Amino acid sequence: MSQEFTPIQKLGRKGLIEALSKYEGSSSEGIRTIRGDDAAVIKKGGGHLILLSSDTFVEGADFDPSYTPFSHLGYKMISSSISDIYAMNGIPSAVLVNLAVPNRLSVEMITDLYKGMDEACKIHNVKIAGGDLTGNHNHTVISISVYGEVSEEEVTYRNGASEGDAICVTGDVGAAIAGLRILMREKKFWEEHGNQSVQPDLAEYKFVVQRQLMPEARLDVIKTLKAYSIKPTSMIDLTKGLISEVTELCEQSGVGAHLYEAALPIAVETRHVANEMEEDVDKYALFGGEDLELIFTLSEEQAEELNKHFKDFTVIGRMTPEKDGLIIQTAEGELIDFDDLS
Amino acid sequence: MSQEFTPIQKLGRKGLIEALSKYEGSSSEGIRTIRGDDAAVIKKGGGHLILLSSDTFVEGADFDPSYTPFSHLGYKMISSSISDIYAMNGIPSAVLVNLAVPNRLSVEMITDLYKGMDEACKIHNVKIAGGDLTGNHNHTVISISVYGEVSEEEVTYRNGASEGDAICVTGDVGAAIAGLRILMREKKFWEEHGNQSVQPDLAEYKFVVQRQLMPEARLDVIKTLKAYSIKPTSMIDLTKGLISEVTELCEQSGVGAHLYEAALPIAVETRHVANEMEEDVDKYALFGGEDLELIFTLSEEQAEELNKHFKDFTVIGRMTPEKDGLIIQTAEGELIDFDDLS
Repeated sequence: MSQEFTPIQKLGRKGLIEALSKYEGSSSEGIRTIRGDDAAVIKKGGGHLILLSSDTFVEGADFDPSYTPFSHLGYKMISSSISDIYAMNGIPSAVLVNLAVPNRLSVEMITDLYKGMDEACKIHNVKIAGGDLTGNHNHTVISISVYGEVSEEEVTYRNGASEGDAICVTGDVGAAIAGLRILMREKKFWEEHGNQSVQPDLAEYKFVVQRQLMPEARLDVIKTLKAYSIKPTSMIDLTKGLISEVTELCEQSGVGAHLYEAALPIAVETRHVANEMEEDVDKYALFGGEDLELIFTLSEEQAEELNKHFKDFTVIGRMTPEKDGLIIQTAEGELIDFDDLS
Repeated sequence: MSQEFTPIQKLGRKGLIEALSKYEGSSSEGIRTIRGDDAAVIKKGGGHLILLSSDTFVEGADFDPSYTPFSHLGYKMISSSISDIYAMNGIPSAVLVNLAVPNRLSVEMITDLYKGMDEACKIHNVKIAGGDLTGNHNHTVISISVYGEVSEEEVTYRNGASEGDAICVTGDVGAAIAGLRILMREKKFWEEHGNQSVQPDLAEYKFVVQRQLMPEARLDVIKTLKAYSIKPTSMIDLTKGLISEVTELCEQSGVGAHLYEAALPIAVETRHVANEMEEDVDKYALFGGEDLELIFTLSEEQAEELNKHFKDFTVIGRMTPEKDGLIIQTAEGELIDFDDLS
């Protein structure tokens, strides 16, 4: 065992994952792994691929039970987990759920968690196929593993984008972070005025709070792509933030990107929250994560074809030569070079 | 959200898992789940079944880094995880690894963990196909998901044992708990005399310590069963303890069991530790877990057939009518009814 001590921060999460990637166990030929993709891919013959993905959700880091009802948490964890399969253009069919829970949780809380998972799974035709339940010290840790499938023709990786491809995003962006800002404000208020039992009225923020607590994975998009035989050249789901995801597509595909800030699809409810918070809504859109929208690239013809059948997506930019890096053009025409910031 | 608060202890782990089993998401026909088995089973057509399993390992509950080198921990986690696939008579081929680690861990510790996983995976021809790395507060939580396969003819569940079947166990039992007893004694000594820098000499306990820190999953047994077309009527791996596992086979199969204490395969090294600790070695064998041996049932003819080709297993009893419950016959001929104890 090594006696050195290099802090994780020194390498960073990404650096550490890269350093660990050389430990791959057996180099079975049947299993193709492209590190950095949303799911692992297992070749099964017969033109079918199996997709496996797993995510860990840690109380305090990934969720805060003080403003997250357990039923919503269960729903969100399933949405987030199966979104990784959609991001590969695949269809999820089963999940395994591992709970490590402290004793202070009640049977009702865990049951609510399962009710939320059950609801999301039914919407997406996914089966809760098993899992494990163990104890933990002070906080809850939940791991979800997802099993899905995709044909060899349809599988979409992060590395297939070409110069000139349209960068598309479904739905709208920044709503989940707007919801989080509201919930955090309410939590702070609650902590300061806790015993006055004033129930916060979140009705006017329902849209953004819902997007934070119960985001929807975009099964409809995958169905549409399949129905019209449109295959993205690359795809990723929006979990960390738009800039982070587009950077990932650029790095994996060896291209740059030119984004138009004015094109970002932002809901009016999200703008309203940013105004109220006196914050920049474009920052919500560019850096807020967890929207579970899909970000994908299409050739110009395919983007036009998709637009004939499906309206809930927006072209927000174009892929460019790698040397140009990631550029954002503001509404005022200013060009911001994002490579300088990352 | 429910306002009641029922402590988890009131239902118990098993009761809670049972209560949660009604939340199964979509009831897809292609996915057969038998709650309580080692892995979830997905029907794929073509006579092939996919096996999925996942386990969570929590620092302090499932492992103690103060006497567990990270490389050994990685090895053990892989062994334990893929053992679930062997327990279904299947072959594992890929794992996903989710780490939630506190910042006090070093890059070297995590690298050692991966080295241990890598080593175990290579022995079992399993690929580390992906995973996730997140932060955690004070302790490490590791989830391993395993993907494996088995044919419809060969899949072995916990529920197929019949009256008269021989109860078999591979290798020897109780060694892992003996190793744990030694490590805990050394830890205590270390805590009391920490600064005298006396390195403990564990050489004479190597066998049992190895069985605790780096147990082997029994690929050789599965290969032998396949080679001679011998299919157990039921099977489970030894993780919680022999009595616990046999009880599980009995409950799932609707039978009782009669075990012979004198037949329990116990290594001389394990007996030595029990003597030194002034403890009952049969308790190690019956209640100590983590040996990762396989416990299975065979018809009398099949048990004889297996014995012609493979010597590393022992018949420790027979399945009996359900109404007879679980009985252990001691070396002195006394009958202990275990249903009274559970």
